[in-house]
Amino acid sequence: MPLQMNVDDLSKFLSKEFLQVADDFAIDNVEEGWIQLRLVAHDKHLRPGGTVSGPAMFALADVSAYLVTLAMIGPKALAVTTNCSIDFMRKPRAGADLIARCTLLKLGKHLSVSDVLLYSEGQNAPVARATLTYAIPQK
Amino acid sequence: MPLQMNVDDLSKFLSKEFLQVADDFAIDNVEEGWIQLRLVAHDKHLRPGGTVSGPAMFALADVSAYLVTLAMIGPKALAVTTNCSIDFMRKPRAGADLIARCTLLKLGKHLSVSDVLLYSEGQNAPVARATLTYAIPQK
Amino acid sequence: MPLQMNVDDLSKFLSKEFLQVADDFAIDNVEEGWIQLRLVAHDKHLRPGGTVSGPAMFALADVSAYLVTLAMIGPKALAVTTNCSIDFMRKPRAGADLIARCTLLKLGKHLSVSDVLLYSEGQNAPVARATLTYAIPQK
Amino acid sequence: MPLQMNVDDLSKFLSKEFLQVADDFAIDNVEEGWIQLRLVAHDKHLRPGGTVSGPAMFALADVSAYLVTLAMIGPKALAVTTNCSIDFMRKPRAGADLIARCTLLKLGKHLSVSDVLLYSEGQNAPVARATLTYAIPQK
Repeated sequence: MPLQMNVDDLSKFLSKEFLQVADDFAIDNVEEGWIQLRLVAHDKHLRPGGTVSGPAMFALADVSAYLVTLAMIGPKALAVTTNCSIDFMRKPRAGADLIARCTLLKLGKHLSVSDVLLYSEGQNAPVARATLTYAIPQK
Repeated sequence: MPLQMNVDDLSKFLSKEFLQVADDFAIDNVEEGWIQLRLVAHDKHLRPGGTVSGPAMFALADVSAYLVTLAMIGPKALAVTTNCSIDFMRKPRAGADLIARCTLLKLGKHLSVSDVLLYSEGQNAPVARATLTYAIPQK
Repeated sequence: MPLQMNVDDLSKFLSKEFLQVADDFAIDNVEEGWIQLRLVAHDKHLRPGGTVSGPAMFALADVSAYLVTLAMIGPKALAVTTNCSIDFMRKPRAGADLIARCTLLKLGKHLSVSDVLLYSEGQNAPVARATLTYAIPQK
Repeated sequence: MPLQMNVDDLSKFLSKEFLQVADDFAIDNVEEGWIQLRLVAHDKHLRPGGTVSGPAMFALADVSAYLVTLAMIGPKALAVTTNCSIDFMRKPRAGADLIARCTLLKLGKHLSVSDVLLYSEGQNAPVARATLTYAIPQK
């Protein structure tokens, strides 16, 4: 199954549909069923001590699952998250970008399921993992 | 087990430890093992169409589980979320505050487990549910 | 929305469609969007020490979410679990039936979402909680 | 960090501590932070149509997370599951063994977190995924 959207297409889509948060994210790479996305280190995502906040990690995982789904089915602004489970395992490194590596495990007619590992740039052990289900709007 | 912190104590704690987000939340009520918290409707939490974003809903659930735990054990800034599962079930109502009703299901020595239902103010059907585990720092 | 199946209907359905496990479960009560189900204490569900095993608790939660969905939509053997999150919070009491109290939080066209609390009979604190999503087969 | 238990050690432990279910499982391989386990196809795990049941898939994921943890910390019968999230994505193939490939994502002092992908033998697309947290007993 070929990619319906590349890094450029996805970046433009994000800027158009999610203007408020588009600056927070940068798409590093996209392949069939796989994406790497980064949360650019901004003060507003930080907790005391300089660590990235839980909601910011959730947001990164959520956007990566959304974009890897759209990369395969094309631009559908109305796809919505129905479920997320997330485990916070280690403290992110202060001042480092947070990187999501996201694998599309299932792409059905109604649902997509994606697995995400989150890393502080430059570290090997993941800081968090998440699984997200998106409902795909029907015509 | 008596409350260690009341609404005033928790509000002051939030303002001191989480200055960046304290304005977003208002504590309506706290009882033994139970809290009601609201996310005050701000433009910055909204998605196109005026609905509250997923990360903002996650943040509300997360803070409510944190505060209901602290209400029982006293102020410990270092308690951290280890796990969250969240189901998004309905679209929040545009322009309405989002209300979390959070029940502490377990308070152990190392972990607390809380269940949260999220409602758009004025509506009966929950927009989301979440379960969160907090790790309680040891002395 | 009226009940499509009562305790008798659901018990017969279970015996017919899930013969291998039907003897394990007894339906105590069903109402609109709510069911109470019990796992009858059998040796085969036990772990060393006489406690109910994790898979047996999962099975009880899963069947309760299935039956509360069917109670509202009528008999559809092909509804399937798509997601479950479960927290094990306390050790079940040895030799006691395990009781599931299950609330249907959402009944959509494609998905149902149910919350379950599991109790050892005669105890107040829940031993586990679970949330399950079922995919509803389309005609 | 070296392995504390190899395939033989883990198999003997399983036979001794979980006699009732030990025959259901076979350990294919174990490495540092990784295990492959199989659920041997038995009639008792099947649903109508010959597919492996949800509780049997849960049990396989649960045991694999348990064993990969013990492989690293040594035999501790009292480690208990505290949380599981599981997504059922495809129907398992009738009559095929179910294979778990399990990665230990975090091994802390109090908790381990493991990710599991489940496959029907001979198929490439996973039938389910799960994440499990184990509480590690303290001395």
